[in-house]
Amino acid sequence: MRSPARVEVLNTGTEILFGSVINTHLSFLAQRLFPLGLRVQRQVTVPDGDAIRDAILESASRSDLILVTGGLGPTSDDITREIVAELTRRPLRYDDRIFQKIKERFDRRGLKLTDRISRQAYVPEGAVVLPNDFGTAPGLYLPAQDRIPHLFLLPGPPRELQPMVDTYALPIWQRLAGDHDIHARTFRTTGLGESYIESMVGERLLAIPGLELGYCARMGEVDVRVVGSRSAVDAASEIIQSELAPCIFSTEEKELEEVIVQLLTAKQATLATAESCTGGLLANRVTDVAGASVVFLEGNVTYSNDAKTRTLGVSAELISAVGAVSEEVARAMAEGALQRSGAAFALSTTGIAGPDGGTAEKPVGTVFIGLASCRQATQVEKLFFPTDRRTFKSVCTQYALDMLRKRLLEI
Amino acid sequence: MRSPARVEVLNTGTEILFGSVINTHLSFLAQRLFPLGLRVQRQVTVPDGDAIRDAILESASRSDLILVTGGLGPTSDDITREIVAELTRRPLRYDDRIFQKIKERFDRRGLKLTDRISRQAYVPEGAVVLPNDFGTAPGLYLPAQDRIPHLFLLPGPPRELQPMVDTYALPIWQRLAGDHDIHARTFRTTGLGESYIESMVGERLLAIPGLELGYCARMGEVDVRVVGSRSAVDAASEIIQSELAPCIFSTEEKELEEVIVQLLTAKQATLATAESCTGGLLANRVTDVAGASVVFLEGNVTYSNDAKTRTLGVSAELISAVGAVSEEVARAMAEGALQRSGAAFALSTTGIAGPDGGTAEKPVGTVFIGLASCRQATQVEKLFFPTDRRTFKSVCTQYALDMLRKRLLEI
Repeated sequence: MRSPARVEVLNTGTEILFGSVINTHLSFLAQRLFPLGLRVQRQVTVPDGDAIRDAILESASRSDLILVTGGLGPTSDDITREIVAELTRRPLRYDDRIFQKIKERFDRRGLKLTDRISRQAYVPEGAVVLPNDFGTAPGLYLPAQDRIPHLFLLPGPPRELQPMVDTYALPIWQRLAGDHDIHARTFRTTGLGESYIESMVGERLLAIPGLELGYCARMGEVDVRVVGSRSAVDAASEIIQSELAPCIFSTEEKELEEVIVQLLTAKQATLATAESCTGGLLANRVTDVAGASVVFLEGNVTYSNDAKTRTLGVSAELISAVGAVSEEVARAMAEGALQRSGAAFALSTTGIAGPDGGTAEKPVGTVFIGLASCRQATQVEKLFFPTDRRTFKSVCTQYALDMLRKRLLEI
Repeated sequence: MRSPARVEVLNTGTEILFGSVINTHLSFLAQRLFPLGLRVQRQVTVPDGDAIRDAILESASRSDLILVTGGLGPTSDDITREIVAELTRRPLRYDDRIFQKIKERFDRRGLKLTDRISRQAYVPEGAVVLPNDFGTAPGLYLPAQDRIPHLFLLPGPPRELQPMVDTYALPIWQRLAGDHDIHARTFRTTGLGESYIESMVGERLLAIPGLELGYCARMGEVDVRVVGSRSAVDAASEIIQSELAPCIFSTEEKELEEVIVQLLTAKQATLATAESCTGGLLANRVTDVAGASVVFLEGNVTYSNDAKTRTLGVSAELISAVGAVSEEVARAMAEGALQRSGAAFALSTTGIAGPDGGTAEKPVGTVFIGLASCRQATQVEKLFFPTDRRTFKSVCTQYALDMLRKRLLEI
């Protein structure tokens, strides 16, 4: 395959064109392809059904590798498998091993197999089966043949597609891409804006010959991604580290909550949470990490004032004197959670998520975040994130976890 | 314009193809177009630059309306305006009113105008300017002419595009679409698989003349969407309701947690949660809903056994006798949360999220979900969702919320 190879992504699914779901496949696939020197030059979404045939044919004339998502399921509009078999003139063969695997999955869950399900056990002759460890429809790889380039058929649901790509497709892509002196490194930062980061490091990074640079801003985070030869990436890393080090929480594509669980585990420390405005998101993020049970003792979602008093021992007089959204209550919540749980650290949040409940003095977006520990004085930060409710919750938990991360690095 | 008109969306932007940002434009635009009877039949993403020309020409032969996003900014790769002027043979004219508006915006923020910025003040002759109230580059509408259909050029950043569409583009689309007898209804269900649903209603729905049918499966949910004339949609609704009614939680595109908060509010009832394996996700979902504070009192994320005993009064002897993942402990957790909070209802979860911690008797994926209320005996369900950790948490909370929904419908 020529290098960098021309890749096209073909997403199928009427629900994507109806706007019912946001298409996250392109972003995921492009990020996986990028370090291999493979670039997506075009992405197309077509409805389920016959439009898939035309789209594959158009794409075939322009590309070396086509990644098709969706249309592998059991329902009547899932016909990607059949279309590709016809286009590549590979007859469909029944593969009993796939059927048995699907059957086992259904048996394990006590579900009844329908006739339609068995369609998923048909495989175009000569195709490589990519097992689906998180669903029924397997993926398929059809090596280039005649005028059709390398084709990958991947399932529509992201929770099935993503692990399938990482486990079964990536090794094949690596082989197809060949050996290049292409390296990639991602610096995940929190607490800084994208334009600020660009002003700090952008110019010097762009001056490095052959370096490609990308920023990716998400809620409360900015990734800085550099791709190039080993020496270019090393030079870039030095600049980024020297300017941004305190705000970099991972260079291994880890989530902030993973870093937190890792640090707590390494320091043999435990955590409890006391949440009001973040409503359980803080506990939820920490418990998303496998192994969290070793370090996470308990989370208290004290939404009502009464719960703050009853569970965390925050005095009702204090709440009525200074309000639930206050530095004092954030402090009392963190200290209450520390005391009741016996954890080494406790985080608290109290704020106004909106859309209602704001006042002139404490507008929607106001939040106090507390960090108590058995060894140091309690730290409380007042912040202001005027945004929608979900983003607010997300950004508050990001800030709270980063306060804890910085503390854990000190001890 | 013929009806339903054929719409294509053309997203431009190298950052989308690099995977740095998730493309939310399609979902937003499709949702705005749908009620007008306008369907997106294809969506394409191309890089900044000349690929835009080819993509517009391809699209022109297939569609009545093209919505182009991105490439209107001040930098050198923003050339959508120039390409479209050339394609439609409309010379670019300098519009001083646009320039003055941009200048005011910069002055207000104390920013210095660069030469490049003034490019944004050029407009193809005969184009309608769509003001940008949240940025500098205005949008443009070029009415159909020769072989180029109606063209809308919209800015790349969602925070600029979305208000521009709602304020300035939608009224034009409404005029272009005219009056059609097109209706859409979505039935959101939980507790049933996609293939089971299709086997129950698929054949009869497909027999309704002129009805379009789509399924969309997400974690623990399947949407059934029908589109067509009023009579077709009514006939479809009757079939779907008669077969699936108990599992339909919304016909208004609401999330399950929104339905729960709405039901609790209507019944003047309150909720508390006691979570182990779901780690705060249950509380987090409920508190994602604006107005949740009226009905949600507290969430207890009792991750450690000690926390289950201390906070919820689950006897330590019981835990060591039957294990934390058991019907008895799920019952005691729900009842403990009910008692301590004084809520009308309490939900509990205890299970093995994995990847570790499973045994032969209680493998990863085992969960007990409890629902206690002040009026009825506590209900506990044993379930088995062998999957990845995050999906497990999500599906467990879905099941728990649906248990509560069904109970709330009874009272």
